[in-house]
Amino acid sequence: MNDIYTDLGFAKLDLSRKHRTGIAETIYCAGKTKEQLAEILKSFAQKGISVLGTRCSQEQAEYVFQTNIPLSYDETSRLLKLSVGQKEKLNGSIAVCCAGTADLPVAEEAAQTAEFLGAEVQRFFDIGIAGIHRLFAKLEEIRQADIIIAVAGMEGALSSVIAGLVDTPVLAVPTSVGYGASFNGLAPLLTMLNSCAEGISVVNIDNGFGAAVTACKMLRRMKNND
Amino acid sequence: MNDIYTDLGFAKLDLSRKHRTGIAETIYCAGKTKEQLAEILKSFAQKGISVLGTRCSQEQAEYVFQTNIPLSYDETSRLLKLSVGQKEKLNGSIAVCCAGTADLPVAEEAAQTAEFLGAEVQRFFDIGIAGIHRLFAKLEEIRQADIIIAVAGMEGALSSVIAGLVDTPVLAVPTSVGYGASFNGLAPLLTMLNSCAEGISVVNIDNGFGAAVTACKMLRRMKNND
Amino acid sequence: MNDIYTDLGFAKLDLSRKHRTGIAETIYCAGKTKEQLAEILKSFAQKGISVLGTRCSQEQAEYVFQTNIPLSYDETSRLLKLSVGQKEKLNGSIAVCCAGTADLPVAEEAAQTAEFLGAEVQRFFDIGIAGIHRLFAKLEEIRQADIIIAVAGMEGALSSVIAGLVDTPVLAVPTSVGYGASFNGLAPLLTMLNSCAEGISVVNIDNGFGAAVTACKMLRRMKNND
Amino acid sequence: MNDIYTDLGFAKLDLSRKHRTGIAETIYCAGKTKEQLAEILKSFAQKGISVLGTRCSQEQAEYVFQTNIPLSYDETSRLLKLSVGQKEKLNGSIAVCCAGTADLPVAEEAAQTAEFLGAEVQRFFDIGIAGIHRLFAKLEEIRQADIIIAVAGMEGALSSVIAGLVDTPVLAVPTSVGYGASFNGLAPLLTMLNSCAEGISVVNIDNGFGAAVTACKMLRRMKNND
Amino acid sequence: MNDIYTDLGFAKLDLSRKHRTGIAETIYCAGKTKEQLAEILKSFAQKGISVLGTRCSQEQAEYVFQTNIPLSYDETSRLLKLSVGQKEKLNGSIAVCCAGTADLPVAEEAAQTAEFLGAEVQRFFDIGIAGIHRLFAKLEEIRQADIIIAVAGMEGALSSVIAGLVDTPVLAVPTSVGYGASFNGLAPLLTMLNSCAEGISVVNIDNGFGAAVTACKMLRRMKNND
Amino acid sequence: MNDIYTDLGFAKLDLSRKHRTGIAETIYCAGKTKEQLAEILKSFAQKGISVLGTRCSQEQAEYVFQTNIPLSYDETSRLLKLSVGQKEKLNGSIAVCCAGTADLPVAEEAAQTAEFLGAEVQRFFDIGIAGIHRLFAKLEEIRQADIIIAVAGMEGALSSVIAGLVDTPVLAVPTSVGYGASFNGLAPLLTMLNSCAEGISVVNIDNGFGAAVTACKMLRRMKNND
Amino acid sequence: MNDIYTDLGFAKLDLSRKHRTGIAETIYCAGKTKEQLAEILKSFAQKGISVLGTRCSQEQAEYVFQTNIPLSYDETSRLLKLSVGQKEKLNGSIAVCCAGTADLPVAEEAAQTAEFLGAEVQRFFDIGIAGIHRLFAKLEEIRQADIIIAVAGMEGALSSVIAGLVDTPVLAVPTSVGYGASFNGLAPLLTMLNSCAEGISVVNIDNGFGAAVTACKMLRRMKNND
Amino acid sequence: MNDIYTDLGFAKLDLSRKHRTGIAETIYCAGKTKEQLAEILKSFAQKGISVLGTRCSQEQAEYVFQTNIPLSYDETSRLLKLSVGQKEKLNGSIAVCCAGTADLPVAEEAAQTAEFLGAEVQRFFDIGIAGIHRLFAKLEEIRQADIIIAVAGMEGALSSVIAGLVDTPVLAVPTSVGYGASFNGLAPLLTMLNSCAEGISVVNIDNGFGAAVTACKMLRRMKNND
Repeated sequence: MNDIYTDLGFAKLDLSRKHRTGIAETIYCAGKTKEQLAEILKSFAQKGISVLGTRCSQEQAEYVFQTNIPLSYDETSRLLKLSVGQKEKLNGSIAVCCAGTADLPVAEEAAQTAEFLGAEVQRFFDIGIAGIHRLFAKLEEIRQADIIIAVAGMEGALSSVIAGLVDTPVLAVPTSVGYGASFNGLAPLLTMLNSCAEGISVVNIDNGFGAAVTACKMLRRMKNND
Repeated sequence: MNDIYTDLGFAKLDLSRKHRTGIAETIYCAGKTKEQLAEILKSFAQKGISVLGTRCSQEQAEYVFQTNIPLSYDETSRLLKLSVGQKEKLNGSIAVCCAGTADLPVAEEAAQTAEFLGAEVQRFFDIGIAGIHRLFAKLEEIRQADIIIAVAGMEGALSSVIAGLVDTPVLAVPTSVGYGASFNGLAPLLTMLNSCAEGISVVNIDNGFGAAVTACKMLRRMKNND
Repeated sequence: MNDIYTDLGFAKLDLSRKHRTGIAETIYCAGKTKEQLAEILKSFAQKGISVLGTRCSQEQAEYVFQTNIPLSYDETSRLLKLSVGQKEKLNGSIAVCCAGTADLPVAEEAAQTAEFLGAEVQRFFDIGIAGIHRLFAKLEEIRQADIIIAVAGMEGALSSVIAGLVDTPVLAVPTSVGYGASFNGLAPLLTMLNSCAEGISVVNIDNGFGAAVTACKMLRRMKNND
Repeated sequence: MNDIYTDLGFAKLDLSRKHRTGIAETIYCAGKTKEQLAEILKSFAQKGISVLGTRCSQEQAEYVFQTNIPLSYDETSRLLKLSVGQKEKLNGSIAVCCAGTADLPVAEEAAQTAEFLGAEVQRFFDIGIAGIHRLFAKLEEIRQADIIIAVAGMEGALSSVIAGLVDTPVLAVPTSVGYGASFNGLAPLLTMLNSCAEGISVVNIDNGFGAAVTACKMLRRMKNND
Repeated sequence: MNDIYTDLGFAKLDLSRKHRTGIAETIYCAGKTKEQLAEILKSFAQKGISVLGTRCSQEQAEYVFQTNIPLSYDETSRLLKLSVGQKEKLNGSIAVCCAGTADLPVAEEAAQTAEFLGAEVQRFFDIGIAGIHRLFAKLEEIRQADIIIAVAGMEGALSSVIAGLVDTPVLAVPTSVGYGASFNGLAPLLTMLNSCAEGISVVNIDNGFGAAVTACKMLRRMKNND
Repeated sequence: MNDIYTDLGFAKLDLSRKHRTGIAETIYCAGKTKEQLAEILKSFAQKGISVLGTRCSQEQAEYVFQTNIPLSYDETSRLLKLSVGQKEKLNGSIAVCCAGTADLPVAEEAAQTAEFLGAEVQRFFDIGIAGIHRLFAKLEEIRQADIIIAVAGMEGALSSVIAGLVDTPVLAVPTSVGYGASFNGLAPLLTMLNSCAEGISVVNIDNGFGAAVTACKMLRRMKNND
Repeated sequence: MNDIYTDLGFAKLDLSRKHRTGIAETIYCAGKTKEQLAEILKSFAQKGISVLGTRCSQEQAEYVFQTNIPLSYDETSRLLKLSVGQKEKLNGSIAVCCAGTADLPVAEEAAQTAEFLGAEVQRFFDIGIAGIHRLFAKLEEIRQADIIIAVAGMEGALSSVIAGLVDTPVLAVPTSVGYGASFNGLAPLLTMLNSCAEGISVVNIDNGFGAAVTACKMLRRMKNND
Repeated sequence: MNDIYTDLGFAKLDLSRKHRTGIAETIYCAGKTKEQLAEILKSFAQKGISVLGTRCSQEQAEYVFQTNIPLSYDETSRLLKLSVGQKEKLNGSIAVCCAGTADLPVAEEAAQTAEFLGAEVQRFFDIGIAGIHRLFAKLEEIRQADIIIAVAGMEGALSSVIAGLVDTPVLAVPTSVGYGASFNGLAPLLTMLNSCAEGISVVNIDNGFGAAVTACKMLRRMKNND
């Protein structure tokens, strides 16, 4: 059984996930103690497996940096990266678009996750529809991508507008940016789910990571990757 | 007391509303029996006051048409109109835009209410953002209006896109058109309330009537009407 | 302007959508009068454009069948199809899975939409997780598809279980099948959005159509279609 | 392209917004790092453009005050103001009413935003309906305004009562003042959307800024401003 | 045990409720078959106990009228009344106010329930705040009552306005009158719960019956009734 | 593969469920066409397997009764029963309690499901807490049961009161009986989930079937059944 | 106008409230700055008017204690009391019951508010239905009160059980005590609104103050107070 | 009366709960002051009764450790244990399963509560369905238990998958682990309530304690305990 997972008691590291799903196991750092996180990272490092940690707090990052594991941490996206060996390279490219500057943490989580998984990423930030000419100015570049990740809070209309203009699948990521009747991201989530434009599918609020993984799974299929 | 309202027991007709608020009393037909509706209409007709009935069912309309009151009824908007004497004429114009054909009942409620109150109305229907070139083709005409009423269901992004492109106030009307996570119009309502574009204010779901009254109150002030 | 849309007054038919987005305009039949629907269909037929109508009621279908337009209608999926000329053929295949028999209308909407758009579809119905061996019995076949559409009501866990077992992107479609705390599909919607398995993106409740269009947009990109 | 926006990478400053919409771009400070905010302000200052920042925290304000940009900050409303050159002057006046003292931050955001955009503002604070004589005492003054902004938390009935008494359009702003079944402002939001009085339109919870911008767009149209 | 309840199998009639709570058992007709309802009524009639049935459908009423029990039925309020012997007489009076004509079914349920329980009732209907002078015209009369029941749908502000003007306790009854963001009465329910005016307590949406029973319990205590 | 399920295309009958889970497959009739239901029943009948159908409409029942399959149908509970061979007999007993007569359909679904699965059932109906002496009168009998199923709508407090008085596990079933702020059973669902009394677990709204199956699974374990 | 309110600019103190409603103005401290609070208190003190402040934070209390105003503060209930002159004395008594120890802050807010307004209060704490014998042990004493205030969090069933056992009106106060599906007091709020026992009316979550004011308004009417 | 509860004024300790319900009283520490908690513990200690405190904060624990009472505290589960005399021993065993490491606090609350009440517990942690082979690897062991407690956040599908594979009753505990559309545990709560697998009943979000008590009540009945 050892070959398909490692049992740490409080965690069972899924060693066959890469084989099964094309994407290696990742670590959801939120809700883990810093000691648990360190032990998990050590275990992956010992096995020579690259792994990505999401929603890693500053405090968790500082703690695990005291180990000898070769880690890097990005404050904006809260991603923790353990990179071992040669990185996978995916053919194809992903455009990560976001509506406003406040959406950057989620957009960067998407962009850097995709890069970690081997994809090429173009960033198009602050192109929300209040000033739609900013989107049109970038439209031809955005159309070149194989997949578009559209990140937006407040009313979240960016993904609908884009999807009506391109022949590329759009992964929409609602964010919790906003206040009042945004209800912590419920508003853009509903917007994206009800889009009258076609070709949009949606992930959880603030889940830039999930959008990137889904995009990379698509790229792998699209481009005869692997 | 007679001069400020008429007491029918089950209803007290507000005769000073026009004086106080610039807009005469209107009748919310839903929830009234057809007999109550007929009695109210008779009372207004006797006093020579024009009045608009909203959300009037086919069945209610047929019943009250059996009276001698000079009524007209529109099936699409479910508006019942009792027109007596000379119509008020408001300077200025209102653009009523809607996203899709299914939004027509609400858009027509807005347009015909505004016309009943004396405003000039331009209609721009089925210009939703899934095919945004349809909106751009009409943009210059829309910009000419003094006020824009933007009616949309599903994700309701039309009002945001318009508001980012014009210097006209936008009254946004979410509709219950849609299904699933539209939650009967909650989705476009939240979209419109959370708009990142400025200059939008919102009325209740499917409330084309309310948007039109608000627009006419604005026109009256704007154009030195009255 | 004639070349990019046809203006019927109550509707503006988007003639450039196929060019812009890879997918021709479709008709959302719900909320349209049967007369409006007939006029729209005639207009497309005259231009020799194939078009798909969704959420078409029995009554609407019967009405438009009285015209001379070459239509077909499927009761289960409520799809109305106007097929003109040669059908597009997309390389690649889509697995449409559903959890229970009651999910069939949505699953068929997905499957037949995808077929209408030229994709090859495999159906795997009634493989919900209450009897997970039924899923495992079909797993190898499901893995062959380029994209998986997972349709489920009640608790909607099917998509998570599948996504943890395959390297294919999964499009999850929550359905309104269920009662009580399903809240008309809210429960499976939330399940799918919160999936701990990676590679899932979600469309609106009961939106088999949207999942199929998204899948076909992916296939077009994946397989050098076009 | 430089003339319509400035690209800072993390932000694209919309330089044509004033031209398009009559209202210059504003900065939503929440969710921006203080370094991003400073860079944006510098860019506007260099171009000689006045700009308003909303939801600016004390900490952000202190940081950007270390630059040489001529800024002012108001703690109550959390508005940050960069004033360059001659201020626009709008004809017409706005009455900003609020129900209770706890609504002041939102009411001041509305009032000061309107003043920043050139409007004349009268303040009528703490005139909620629990002591309705306070409202009646001020009614004649309130009626003089061209537009009324009514700010209220808890049950938010102020806007309905006012709208029933005046011929002025009312912009209603629900606030998050309250507790329990206020659900952070949902209660007054619903109250305002469902008003039986006519002539009310609503903005997001706590969005004094949005109400003021909408009011100023109306004033510009009303009074042949520009 | 017989003296405290009668066991019909599908129902256990509470014979000691009058003794315990001051109010005799009542019958919630909704959800009962017409045969069950008839059997329950017969049992009460045999014991010579007056009883009130609420939410009785037309169809149920017609069925039970075929028995020999001395019943009366009111269509507006859907109340079914079995009156046996001398009616109790409560000192004190209740003012039943409602905002609009569409609230009449609930207001009548309140008024007739109170009358059935022996209270004196004054009706003040259609005095909603859109025309607040109608309320002021009746205010002195309303102030005479010992308890006020305020029934309102839409935004439900009537109870707050009244409570700020009188020294009488106010029982607020939200109704499901309205549409869209009324969410079937949620809007006025929240309004009433969040009232800034003091002395209001609230019952369930459309629960005129419950308000009347509560009011009568108060009257019994207030006026040395019993 | 034949031995673990039968594939009808639109349905895969789970033949190993009894072996795996102790409870044979059941049929959720809602959402199935009557033809599908008939085919499924025939298949089970041919294999000599007893099966229970839930939420079977009158119309479905009438259709399948035209086949030769030995079926029975109960209108109150909407249960359809195909009984083949010797019934299983479970040791131990279940008390099915309900708060009001309107809860009977759910209570009977629970009771008859449990009886179909071989359990002995005692019924205690209409013992809601408005007349708590009715509960106390039956308390000793209720305590004899091995498991209690407590069915209640409206505020759903019955399960809490019982659980505080017995040493038996309580399965709580909220029902959609009620109106207004019951929100179709949300109110009793939340009541039951938040119970301050211990030993309660909860199933879906109106899910008498699910409570009974869970109770029978417990009985089988409790009493060395099987 | 001076005699009916004092205008502090940020606040208008309602001096005629006692006359109009029987209850003097009170101060909602939450959302006021400590300087505003001090100024309001000074103004009341100068006029010789007793006033109660609710939801007063420790920090606010410490600040206003630095003035010379004769104040007292209670940490549990967060009530701030300015007592001037002779206290009103109300005939009749109020029973304040609460379900658990964690409900004490709300129960004390109710009890002390009632005492401040002149009522006699009996406290019955921690008598929740998980151990219903504790309630029965106190029932005779509780029945003596003229009004019962029932405070409960979690599932909030206390008020229903009490109301079924007494002939006294019950004011139910849901509290935010609980977690998870309590949704900050939504669960007991719904429980109380849907009570099958009669004679219950409900105030906002955690609104012990409001219940007490309502109870005192009842007492004043009941007992020929004033 | 002394023998059935101890009255501390702010709390009434239920001394007969063990006798009535099989489970001794427990202390809900949240919302109690540390002084109240200490006094309650002292009272139980003096009577020689073991008692469990739930949701005990670090700060509360530190305070009560200054007394002489023999206490132990577990940080992960936040359980406070006062163990006096011989522990009860329950026959039978409980499998506590959880989906991810972040669910450990809730899983440990369940496991340690069950152990405190005398049950034997097996822990199966981090076996969520994203890597379903981890569950299958443990399935035979899990099947040995008499009752399964399944703890899961995010989409909460673990309980459904398990219930479809075992003949053991499953108590499902949703957790607040997750973000965005998890809505603090609402998502897994709905998942568990809507499970298509049979034999699941659900407790409140994060209520590991409640699941354990329910499980122990079942064990006592199952195994002729007591």
